[in-house]
Amino acid sequence: MAADPGSHDATTPAAPVTWPGGYQAAATLGFDMDAEDVALTVDPESRHRLSAMSHQAYGPLTGVPRVLDLLERYEVRATFFCPGYTAERYPDLLRRVRDAGHEIAHHGYLHEAIAGMSRDQEAAVLDRGLEALDRVAGVRPVGYRAPMWETTYASAELLLDRGFAYDSSLMDSDLPYQLAERPGEGARSIVEIPVSWALDDWEQFAFVPELFGPGVIEDPAKSLAMWTAELTEAHRHGSCFTLTVHPFLSGRLGRLRALETLIQTMLTLPGLWLAPARDLAEHVRSLDLTPRVFPQPEIPA
Amino acid sequence: MAADPGSHDATTPAAPVTWPGGYQAAATLGFDMDAEDVALTVDPESRHRLSAMSHQAYGPLTGVPRVLDLLERYEVRATFFCPGYTAERYPDLLRRVRDAGHEIAHHGYLHEAIAGMSRDQEAAVLDRGLEALDRVAGVRPVGYRAPMWETTYASAELLLDRGFAYDSSLMDSDLPYQLAERPGEGARSIVEIPVSWALDDWEQFAFVPELFGPGVIEDPAKSLAMWTAELTEAHRHGSCFTLTVHPFLSGRLGRLRALETLIQTMLTLPGLWLAPARDLAEHVRSLDLTPRVFPQPEIPA
Amino acid sequence: MAADPGSHDATTPAAPVTWPGGYQAAATLGFDMDAEDVALTVDPESRHRLSAMSHQAYGPLTGVPRVLDLLERYEVRATFFCPGYTAERYPDLLRRVRDAGHEIAHHGYLHEAIAGMSRDQEAAVLDRGLEALDRVAGVRPVGYRAPMWETTYASAELLLDRGFAYDSSLMDSDLPYQLAERPGEGARSIVEIPVSWALDDWEQFAFVPELFGPGVIEDPAKSLAMWTAELTEAHRHGSCFTLTVHPFLSGRLGRLRALETLIQTMLTLPGLWLAPARDLAEHVRSLDLTPRVFPQPEIPA
Amino acid sequence: MAADPGSHDATTPAAPVTWPGGYQAAATLGFDMDAEDVALTVDPESRHRLSAMSHQAYGPLTGVPRVLDLLERYEVRATFFCPGYTAERYPDLLRRVRDAGHEIAHHGYLHEAIAGMSRDQEAAVLDRGLEALDRVAGVRPVGYRAPMWETTYASAELLLDRGFAYDSSLMDSDLPYQLAERPGEGARSIVEIPVSWALDDWEQFAFVPELFGPGVIEDPAKSLAMWTAELTEAHRHGSCFTLTVHPFLSGRLGRLRALETLIQTMLTLPGLWLAPARDLAEHVRSLDLTPRVFPQPEIPA
Repeated sequence: MAADPGSHDATTPAAPVTWPGGYQAAATLGFDMDAEDVALTVDPESRHRLSAMSHQAYGPLTGVPRVLDLLERYEVRATFFCPGYTAERYPDLLRRVRDAGHEIAHHGYLHEAIAGMSRDQEAAVLDRGLEALDRVAGVRPVGYRAPMWETTYASAELLLDRGFAYDSSLMDSDLPYQLAERPGEGARSIVEIPVSWALDDWEQFAFVPELFGPGVIEDPAKSLAMWTAELTEAHRHGSCFTLTVHPFLSGRLGRLRALETLIQTMLTLPGLWLAPARDLAEHVRSLDLTPRVFPQPEIPA
Repeated sequence: MAADPGSHDATTPAAPVTWPGGYQAAATLGFDMDAEDVALTVDPESRHRLSAMSHQAYGPLTGVPRVLDLLERYEVRATFFCPGYTAERYPDLLRRVRDAGHEIAHHGYLHEAIAGMSRDQEAAVLDRGLEALDRVAGVRPVGYRAPMWETTYASAELLLDRGFAYDSSLMDSDLPYQLAERPGEGARSIVEIPVSWALDDWEQFAFVPELFGPGVIEDPAKSLAMWTAELTEAHRHGSCFTLTVHPFLSGRLGRLRALETLIQTMLTLPGLWLAPARDLAEHVRSLDLTPRVFPQPEIPA
Repeated sequence: MAADPGSHDATTPAAPVTWPGGYQAAATLGFDMDAEDVALTVDPESRHRLSAMSHQAYGPLTGVPRVLDLLERYEVRATFFCPGYTAERYPDLLRRVRDAGHEIAHHGYLHEAIAGMSRDQEAAVLDRGLEALDRVAGVRPVGYRAPMWETTYASAELLLDRGFAYDSSLMDSDLPYQLAERPGEGARSIVEIPVSWALDDWEQFAFVPELFGPGVIEDPAKSLAMWTAELTEAHRHGSCFTLTVHPFLSGRLGRLRALETLIQTMLTLPGLWLAPARDLAEHVRSLDLTPRVFPQPEIPA
Repeated sequence: MAADPGSHDATTPAAPVTWPGGYQAAATLGFDMDAEDVALTVDPESRHRLSAMSHQAYGPLTGVPRVLDLLERYEVRATFFCPGYTAERYPDLLRRVRDAGHEIAHHGYLHEAIAGMSRDQEAAVLDRGLEALDRVAGVRPVGYRAPMWETTYASAELLLDRGFAYDSSLMDSDLPYQLAERPGEGARSIVEIPVSWALDDWEQFAFVPELFGPGVIEDPAKSLAMWTAELTEAHRHGSCFTLTVHPFLSGRLGRLRALETLIQTMLTLPGLWLAPARDLAEHVRSLDLTPRVFPQPEIPA
C-alpha cells in the first residue's frame, strides 16, 4: 500500500479576500532590485566579466531612476525588493527609493538561492540582508521575497522570528492568505502575497550567455498583452494582480513604455486598489483569516 | 544488406471513424491533475522547495475548483486524469470531481516516467494508481493516460489485464482506433484516443527553474489561436480534437479565460460531439474496427 | 603572423541564376520522410518508447497520405527525401509517393548525423540508402539531402561517384549553384540547392522530451507569416524558395492548413516556377555555371 | 558584517548627452561580420561540418553584399565590426566595405570569447585582429566591439594603449559615455557606446545544431516590431539606438526586408542622427564628460 503522501487534503485553498471599502480587486507592483548580485550568485567568476556586470548594473544605474520617474509621474507607490548587496553597492539609490515614499523589502543578501541551504544558513542570509538595509537606509523591512522565489518549510518561522509581516514567494493562489509557520496547534502565521512565473519579466526578457535565460527575448508588446489580459481577469475576479519586474530588464526603454501602458490601464480600472505589498499585507492581516498549512510531501517508498 | 526494420508496412494508418448520429466530429477535454507528484518524480529533492511545491499545489487548490466551475457553467463533462498521489493528498477534491459527473481516469501513481521501467515495475505503478483511486473515491477507471505520454510495448496488455477500455497516450493519428496488444493471432485490443504535443498546455506555459520547461512562457492568446485553428480543422475533417490541460498551469486566470473562449467555440461548432474520453472510447469500441499493430522497430546492425 | 585561414576570398558568392522562359523565380517543396529513424539515431533506446515511436509514425501513417492528397488537389509535384529505413518500414507508402509522380530523393539510411563520420562510413550510409530505395520502389534518386543538413568536405565527391545530380544541404546562398567536389583543376561539380533553418518546420514545431527541440511549439500562423514573407521576397528577388517540412510535424491538421495557404499563395505569384528539386537541378546544370569551391577553414595556431 | 561589495555607489549613471545641432537623438547600425570564425571558436571540430561552415559563409557571400546594396540605396553609412579571420578569408569583401565608405571596426581575431583569458592573451588577440585589418585593407580601426560582448576590467586600458577611440560592448546605459580605464587619479578614458541583447538579431534568429541558439527562430515581423518600438522610444528620450545585426542571419531575404523597413522609419524620424559609431564617439569625446568608473565587484565571504 502507498505511503501517506503528507496528509489528507493536506492543504486547503485560499479563502476569498474582501478588499477595503470601494475596492473590488487589488494590484501591486514589485521591482526586484537585482544587480550584480544575481549574476555573482549564479557564477562567482562572472565578476571578471565586465560586460555581464554592466548588463546587471543597468538596473541600478539606468532602470531604477527611470522607474522612479515613471511612478512619480503617475503617483503610484510600489515595493522595491532589494538584495543587501545591491543596497551596499548603490546606497544613494536605495535612499532615493526610500525618500520617494516607496516600500523597501528584503530580497536576500547576494540573491542567494535558498534551495539546499540549512536552516542556519537561511537565517544567516536573512540577517545579513536586514543588516545591510538598516545600515544603508535605516530601513527595517516588513516584507520578504525570496530570491528565485525559493523558500523552504522553515522560511515562515524564520521570517516571523524577525518581525516580518508578509512573504511574497509562493504560487498556489491568486489571493493573499495567512500562512501558518508549521502544522499544529499554536503556530503563528504570516501573510502570503503569491506570485506567478507568468507575471514576471524574467521569463520574457532575461538573457546573458552562460548565466541566464533560454536565449529567447520577447517583444514587450507580447508581455503587455499577456499581463493586461491577466490584470483584466484579476479585476473581474476580485483577485490580486502581483507583477514582478526587474529594472535591469524592464528599465529598458521599449519595455518601460509597455509598463507605463499597463499602469495606465490599472489606473482606469474601476475599484482597483493599487498599493505597495505592505499595505495589502496589513489589510489581509486585519481580516483574521484562518491560517493555511502546507504539509511537506513525503515520497512514498 | 539492411536488417529488416521491424516489418513491411508494419503499421497501417487509422481507419476513418464515423461519429454517432448527427455528429460530424468529436472533441474531448482532458485535465491532467498533476500536482506535487510530477515535481517529485523529476527531482525528489524538490520536496524541500516550498515555492516549487506551492506552484504545483496551484492545480488542486486553485485551478481544479475553478475548472469545475467553468465546466458546470457550460454544462460540459470532461475527463480528469489523476495520479494516485494527487488523489491521496487531495481526496476531497477528487470526490468533488467525481460528484460533478466528470470522468476520472488513471494517470500513474507519482506521475512516473515509464520509459526504462521493466514490465513488472510498470504493472506495479498501474496497480498502485488503481488502488489509490479506489480507496479515495471508489473509482475504477476505464481510461489511462501515461504520465509524460510515455508508454511501452507492454502497456496495452497490462491495461487490458486490468480491464481498461482505452488508453490516451499515443500520437500517430488524429483519430481514435483499436490498438492490438501485440502482433499476431488472438491478440486483444484496446481503444486508443491519440494526443498531440501541440494540444497540450505544458509546452506553452510550464516553467519552474531546474524542474520544467524551457523558460519561455507564452501568451494564452497564442495558444488559444493555435488551438482554435486546430479545432476548426478537426471539425472540418471529422476528426477528434483531444486537448490536454493542467490545472496548475491553465487554471491561472488569463489562461482559464482563454480556455473558456475555446469552449464557447466548441459549443457553437455544428455537429461537434464534446464528450469525456470514456464516451468516445465506448463509441469507438462499438465500431468493431480492425485492430492496429505497432511492431517495435529494430535497429539495423 | 596569423595562419592563412584557408584561402584568400576562398569562396565566391553564387552567381545569379536565370530561370526558364517566363519564370522570374523558383520554389520547391521538400518533404523529409523522417519517421522512427530520426529518433532511433538520436537515442537507440527510444525504440522502447512506444509513444515517441508513435509520434514519429504520424509522418508515414497520417501526415504523408494527407500531404499527397493536398498536393494532388493543387496539382503540385514535390520532392520526398526518404531515409532508407522509412522506405523499408513503409514500402507501400513510398511506392504510393512514387506513383503519384513525385520525386523521391535520398535522405540517409537511419537519418544518420554524418558529422564525425569517416569517409568510408559516409559512403556506406549512402550506399545503404540507395539500396533501400531501389529494393523497395525501384528508385534511383538523383537528389540528396543530408540528415540534419550535415555534410562533409567529402560529400560532393561521394555523391558524384554515385551519379547524383544535386545536393540540397548547404546554406550559403538563396540561389542554386554548381559546387565543385574539391578545389583545383579537373574537379567535377554537383548542383547545390541551398536550404535554410528558417525555412524548416523543425525549429517551429519539433518537440519530444529528451529527443528533440527546445520545448517551444509555435503557432502555424507564425510560421506561415514568416514563410510567406520569405516567399514574397524570393519572388521579388528572382531567388529560389526552398521549403523543408516534415510530415510527422506539418502533417498535423492546423499546420497542413497553413501549408495549403502557402501553396495557394505560391500558385498566385506570377512567374513563380514551382517544381521538384530535380527539375531545378536539371535547369541549373544546363546553365553551365562556374563551379564554386569551399576551401575548408584552417584554425590558426 | 558584510564585506564591502566594491565601493559605495561605485558607479554613477551615464550623464545625459546632447547631440549635434538639430539632432534630438542618435542611431547607429552595426554589422558584425562573423563568419566561420564564430563557429570555429565555439567548436574547432565544426570545421569538418561543411553545412555549418556554409551557414556561416552566408554572411560574407550573400548577406554582406546585400547589406551593402541596401545601405547604398538609402545612402546610409554604417559600422562593420570584422573579426580578423573573416578579413583574411574574405579580403576583397572587406575592401569593398571600406571603399563604400563604411566604418570598419575591430571584432577580435577568431571571434574569441575573452572571458577567462589573461591580460596578455587578450592583448594578443587585439593585436592579431589589428594586424589582419591592416594587412588586408590598410585599416586602423578606432572602434572595438568585443566578440560575444565579453570584455574584462583590463579591456579599456588595452584599447587605449592601441589608440582606440571607443568600445561598444557594455550594457549599463542607453547613452554613450566616457569609461575610465580604472578607478583613481590620472586614469585615461575611452568612449563607450552601449549595446543591448534586445537590439541584437542573434537572440531572434541564430540556430545551428550543437553550436548556437535555443532552437527557436523568430519571425522578422516580431523583431521589427520590437526594434521599431525601441527606436521610437529612443528617439523620444533623446537616447541612442544601437542595433547589432549579423549578415549571416539578417542578410536573409525576409529579414533584410524587415531591416529595410526599420531604416525607412529611421529616415523619417525628425532629428534622428543616423551615423557610424565612429562619428558618435567623436562627438561624445568632444563633450568632455566626466569619465565613469566600474569598480569590480568583490564577493563577500
